Amino acid sequence: MNPNVAAAKAALSHLEMDENPATIRSKSRDFFWYSPILKDRMDHLIADFVVNPASEAEVIEILKTCYAHDVPVTVRGAGTGNYGQSMPMSGGCVIHMKNFNKVKSVYPGGVIAEPGCIMKDLDDEIRATAGQELRMVPSTYAMATVGGFIAGGSGGVGSVRWGALRDLGNIIRLRVVTMEAEPRVLDFRGDELPRVSHAYGTNGIITEVELPTAPAFDWVGVFMRGKDFVEAMQFAADLANQDGILIKLASVYEAPIGHSYFQRVKAHVEPDDTLVGLMIAPQAMDAFAVFAARYPGMSLLYRSDDHDWPRDAGPLYEFAWNHTTLRALKFDPTVTYLQVRYSFPDHFELVEKVRAEFGAEVLQHLEVMRENGKVMFAGLPIVKYTSDERLEEIVRLHEEMGCMIFNPHRYTLEEGGRQSTDARQLNFKREADPKGLLNPGKMIAWDVPDWTYDRIYHYAGITPKPEATE
Amino acid sequence: MNPNVAAAKAALSHLEMDENPATIRSKSRDFFWYSPILKDRMDHLIADFVVNPASEAEVIEILKTCYAHDVPVTVRGAGTGNYGQSMPMSGGCVIHMKNFNKVKSVYPGGVIAEPGCIMKDLDDEIRATAGQELRMVPSTYAMATVGGFIAGGSGGVGSVRWGALRDLGNIIRLRVVTMEAEPRVLDFRGDELPRVSHAYGTNGIITEVELPTAPAFDWVGVFMRGKDFVEAMQFAADLANQDGILIKLASVYEAPIGHSYFQRVKAHVEPDDTLVGLMIAPQAMDAFAVFAARYPGMSLLYRSDDHDWPRDAGPLYEFAWNHTTLRALKFDPTVTYLQVRYSFPDHFELVEKVRAEFGAEVLQHLEVMRENGKVMFAGLPIVKYTSDERLEEIVRLHEEMGCMIFNPHRYTLEEGGRQSTDARQLNFKREADPKGLLNPGKMIAWDVPDWTYDRIYHYAGITPKPEATE
Repeated sequence: MNPNVAAAKAALSHLEMDENPATIRSKSRDFFWYSPILKDRMDHLIADFVVNPASEAEVIEILKTCYAHDVPVTVRGAGTGNYGQSMPMSGGCVIHMKNFNKVKSVYPGGVIAEPGCIMKDLDDEIRATAGQELRMVPSTYAMATVGGFIAGGSGGVGSVRWGALRDLGNIIRLRVVTMEAEPRVLDFRGDELPRVSHAYGTNGIITEVELPTAPAFDWVGVFMRGKDFVEAMQFAADLANQDGILIKLASVYEAPIGHSYFQRVKAHVEPDDTLVGLMIAPQAMDAFAVFAARYPGMSLLYRSDDHDWPRDAGPLYEFAWNHTTLRALKFDPTVTYLQVRYSFPDHFELVEKVRAEFGAEVLQHLEVMRENGKVMFAGLPIVKYTSDERLEEIVRLHEEMGCMIFNPHRYTLEEGGRQSTDARQLNFKREADPKGLLNPGKMIAWDVPDWTYDRIYHYAGITPKPEATE
Repeated sequence: MNPNVAAAKAALSHLEMDENPATIRSKSRDFFWYSPILKDRMDHLIADFVVNPASEAEVIEILKTCYAHDVPVTVRGAGTGNYGQSMPMSGGCVIHMKNFNKVKSVYPGGVIAEPGCIMKDLDDEIRATAGQELRMVPSTYAMATVGGFIAGGSGGVGSVRWGALRDLGNIIRLRVVTMEAEPRVLDFRGDELPRVSHAYGTNGIITEVELPTAPAFDWVGVFMRGKDFVEAMQFAADLANQDGILIKLASVYEAPIGHSYFQRVKAHVEPDDTLVGLMIAPQAMDAFAVFAARYPGMSLLYRSDDHDWPRDAGPLYEFAWNHTTLRALKFDPTVTYLQVRYSFPDHFELVEKVRAEFGAEVLQHLEVMRENGKVMFAGLPIVKYTSDERLEEIVRLHEEMGCMIFNPHRYTLEEGGRQSTDARQLNFKREADPKGLLNPGKMIAWDVPDWTYDRIYHYAGITPKPEATE
């Protein structure tokens, strides 16, 4: 451990720290390993120490101390990000928010919480006390923290109704601490929010979140099955366009995803069944039945409130979004995935073009969501991995066909997003992190302002692989 | 009074009845007088007697008795319909539901109520006890009944989010009593609902409603102003397309509607101001401010939670939907209106075509709503009335331009709708009202199955005008 890091650690030794090397290693990792490209580059990364603050005052102390000693700081929630968001590129300090996790208050339509609060715990609490729940959560909801979702997530279960996390109105307020000699505490609302939301903790540490809520329901989990992928896709989108039927999730799983990767479902389906997974408000189930009867090729496979399966399917959200990828990886570690945006009004046509191009090499997994008020698809296809080169080619072919790719085989904000500098985030980093110590290597604009995105970015300050140093 | 009617009235004399002739006259009338065409035809209509049941058992008794005596029965809530829905064409019995008005139960996402419950009373109760409110209400919410809304309404405040009342999921269950020798009590759900919803009480009497609810908020009422109608229209539609900003109402009032007809607003606006009226969830106001700043031609005129007007504007919903017409009629009894549907994706273009055609003769009043998941416009323009012939021509010109008209200058279900027989309603009337006594004259398919819609329908059984009988 270099002397600066050791000094910072010593200065913070009165705070809760994890000393077990296995714990430090596990808390230095997120779900970057979904990507073979990131796995190769990040698997060796590890923090020098992990500290678990329980309050804003402790966060401030950590930032002030690490600033004084020039120690990099990477914040993590539960480490469920898939883009290596919370991987400590240069070692140093990892802040784990698990103890900083209280629900502070709830009011009609909104909740205020500390960043380390597990989203399911948050929901359980506000559901019991106020009949509310978060508008949108990731499929890793049962383990992910609310601060991590805002700093590194982009939508998920609930986006079929509420759009993306970054859409106006889906975050009310963020409180952020800067990394300066004297850290400042700032409350951001309205047009200030994009400075720090989805910034991977590169320009401030979130210490309080205020989020809008939606009414909580005992959502009914439903699987529909059909032999025709196009009809299934149409079914899911049409249902989301039913203004009076309240749903929280609509996912399309091309055959044979259900049969191959969904363990509790496998016995009930055939390999050529395309599935549609849904979460439907209970009071809408009659209307849903009327709707479903209009699709002759689709039939009900399962509903959580009325089924004869020996073992229930479990929560439908744990099949959706990146849990689909996770389930596939459990059965077949050689697959990987992409994040695709099929925008309205070309979404159906684009999906069909992609299917025609790749066939079974890229199995379609679609999540219905809203973008600018229109129902469209987010794609998280299961991709057969053969080589980095072919994976890059698959990405390029998608883009050439007109699909937007949020490349999950990249660890920088820019490459996982729109491949351009976000001036709001960069400018705020200049104010809030003058030494560039917050989650280093994740913002290309900070390191290499004239980067051209002609190849994968390699952060010069990354801890070298052990092999390379031997 | 003919002997049958007198006998039925006598047999029901133990029930609450209105005997004052002025009361009977006022309870025989709805808002048909918005239309000069309906006013001419319906102004003289009056019930022979008005009975006010307080229970389903009393409704059954009324129906059974009137069936036995061949007495027509027309049901009314508060009489706020604009299509003459509850005008007793042949006299007879009017059932007034005002005493049959309890909220029976509320659960997360739904409410069960008796049909005579005033919608605002219903909302006040479920808001206080459960933090919920109805998804959509008419602008006459403060006086209209929930049963009347379902039997004669089609959407309103809240339709910007939830679509139309007839969309799947916006009604959960209706209990209906038939008019037979032995009236039956039937519960309808799912695909049975269209038999009796929006049937004007022609084929059964609703005795219980179960409706989905939404979370209740202290909606912030907002008026925006601008000089450019097109920008204002775009502003309203774009706001409704913001998936993360929760709104309940977005109305566009072409200049000079605000200055000419909105009394409490007049002093604050200029004649050439087009207004946008909004109801916004309080937790979305920051996001709304960010959104609004993107429209340089639009500026904030009023927000109900922070203003310096000597007298507040009142609830924004009472400017919207048909309250706009009502306000205009108060200032200028020579105007009338239309009900237009500008469907996606041609809605902007259609509005502009109509404006170019008619200019100030047809002042645009748009309500943003959703249809098949897409934001579009319902139009309730203020129309200068010159003659029946010109009014019919204006309707025809709209239709020729591609606008769907729900003609509010007609009193039949078919003519106020899609000018075609609804077989579900007709077939159920055959079962439920074999003598054709329920709200006679409102369903053309019952009276004249081969009607061709080439002119306004005239019900042969209508009580003749006094002049005609002299």
